[in-house]
Amino acid sequence: MTAHPVLAEALRGGIVESAHRGAVAVIDAGGTVHSAWGDIDRPIFPRSAVKVLQALPLVESGAAERFGLSDEELALACASHGGESFHTATAASMLAKAGVDVQALECGTHWPYHDGAIKALAAAGEQPSALNNNCSGKHAGFVCLGCLMAEGDDRRAFLRGYVKPEHPVMREVTAALQASTGYDLSKAAVGTDGCSIPTYAIPLRHLAHAFARVATGQGLRPGHAAAAQRLRQAVARAPQMVAGTGRLDTRLMQRLGERVFCKVGAEGVYCAALPTLGLGVAVKMDDGNNARACEVVLAALLVRLLPLGGDEAAFVHGLADVPLVNWNGIEVGSLRASAELLPA
Amino acid sequence: MTAHPVLAEALRGGIVESAHRGAVAVIDAGGTVHSAWGDIDRPIFPRSAVKVLQALPLVESGAAERFGLSDEELALACASHGGESFHTATAASMLAKAGVDVQALECGTHWPYHDGAIKALAAAGEQPSALNNNCSGKHAGFVCLGCLMAEGDDRRAFLRGYVKPEHPVMREVTAALQASTGYDLSKAAVGTDGCSIPTYAIPLRHLAHAFARVATGQGLRPGHAAAAQRLRQAVARAPQMVAGTGRLDTRLMQRLGERVFCKVGAEGVYCAALPTLGLGVAVKMDDGNNARACEVVLAALLVRLLPLGGDEAAFVHGLADVPLVNWNGIEVGSLRASAELLPA
Repeated sequence: MTAHPVLAEALRGGIVESAHRGAVAVIDAGGTVHSAWGDIDRPIFPRSAVKVLQALPLVESGAAERFGLSDEELALACASHGGESFHTATAASMLAKAGVDVQALECGTHWPYHDGAIKALAAAGEQPSALNNNCSGKHAGFVCLGCLMAEGDDRRAFLRGYVKPEHPVMREVTAALQASTGYDLSKAAVGTDGCSIPTYAIPLRHLAHAFARVATGQGLRPGHAAAAQRLRQAVARAPQMVAGTGRLDTRLMQRLGERVFCKVGAEGVYCAALPTLGLGVAVKMDDGNNARACEVVLAALLVRLLPLGGDEAAFVHGLADVPLVNWNGIEVGSLRASAELLPA
Repeated sequence: MTAHPVLAEALRGGIVESAHRGAVAVIDAGGTVHSAWGDIDRPIFPRSAVKVLQALPLVESGAAERFGLSDEELALACASHGGESFHTATAASMLAKAGVDVQALECGTHWPYHDGAIKALAAAGEQPSALNNNCSGKHAGFVCLGCLMAEGDDRRAFLRGYVKPEHPVMREVTAALQASTGYDLSKAAVGTDGCSIPTYAIPLRHLAHAFARVATGQGLRPGHAAAAQRLRQAVARAPQMVAGTGRLDTRLMQRLGERVFCKVGAEGVYCAALPTLGLGVAVKMDDGNNARACEVVLAALLVRLLPLGGDEAAFVHGLADVPLVNWNGIEVGSLRASAELLPA
């Protein structure tokens, strides 16, 4: 594998303790490269960073309207949430509106990501359900789409196996991913995601282009363009749903509103749409280990790209250069975007 | 920063999803390089991987004997433990033997690392104490050393600030680190560790050499050689103390006994002593993000270096090539040492 540039660094005692390499594509809606670092043509698994693309059929099909999904529910369909109580309640509500329940979900069960939610469940002597799965909103969206597609048939029977590539629901989802990225998924490497749906390896160039299309509507068919706008608005209105308390996606969109739509994915991926600039962004950190590196990289890209005022600029800059504090509250270093991205 | 070789890879869907670069030194007690990958002369922070070196004064001083520390307690002095109930009880016992209590600890407080321990605390409606800090055993060892050094003086007053570089306790600890690594720490970069003690940047070459000395006693002064042997034996007899349920250090030493002494450190560090071979090993993964990469790297090095029988070979090989399973229990890929370390 080519050695990509160092995009993020962890500092301690005045030296670089750890370094994160990666690649970034910033693309406009016409497909022109605005800026790039590293190899943007190597296919990578975008994982959860493309949930908004996978949610396009939920809106375009009319399922969201038929079941009267709210902003909160549409935002949750694009989310990797922390399993907080307002997330699980919203996922349950989506399922109820479609006439089914948690039994319909095929995402699997895990303890919530949010620390407080783990402790609250444990303190109540309860076990998590599939509603706590960080993907339960995305899956509830798939289930809503399936319930519309099932028409008069038995919904439960129709839904079974919706996570499989050959199921009619997943065919719609994959078709939306292909249409929005413009990448031939029939030839792509396919993996299985944490929540059991397929994940397709797509180059950063195509992922960033898809998010430029989401940002602008350009290059999307009308139904997808309208759906993308609706989903972006929903997330901007209910940013606590897309991630959760204290998490980067939520904090950024609470502060910047519709100027940024961003979404983290597992293994160091970030995608973002910047509607005011007409740009899409896609990031993959090589080590993929957790969110810390791609978060400061995304923040640094926003500092570079967005025209931000004083307080906003300081807020976003602070997310690109984050103090590291130890168990006694002593500042021991920092995690920051490298000078490649954010010159001192 | 030089691009080090890829030493570990995460696979999904038949392709490499993420890759981890790093450097490794394997050194004998005479200081000769047995094998190496990447730059082994760049100083790195060893963090918790050198706890056994930092525990040498506890034994050499006679404090361990004076306070009648057991194998379990000495193993905990070398540990980054999970904060399970048997860990916190052992730390508390060390403090009690020295005539003090949890108030003496200056490591700070965090929720236990062990999942079950978090949930048990939350279910009991309790908060963690400094005993749950993964370093509480190391700090209890420092406190025991300090209580011996305090002699007739007020123990509590003497102990105050023992985490500071200039405190008599920390001077002893630093002197042991310098003596065992043979590296001039007065010129090293100094950071503050998670538990507030200083961490010194030391090249992998010197760290591996120190562990070869720990493995053999060669090149250590007699008091340190005897202390190193005592600590290795204690950990081999109580490997559940050095990490905890299900964790790599514990599992490896439960299975391989005194043939391996190994210890993980934060930010992708591993150090190991291999007494039967007279070798020391030191690993630093560049991205430092969490344990996953350095764990498979260490296991691959053990496969390469140790003469292992059928079942043991399969056990250690299995730790160098680990299936990745999703929330539905489906195998979706693997985390493995690269072909650099473990040819197929």
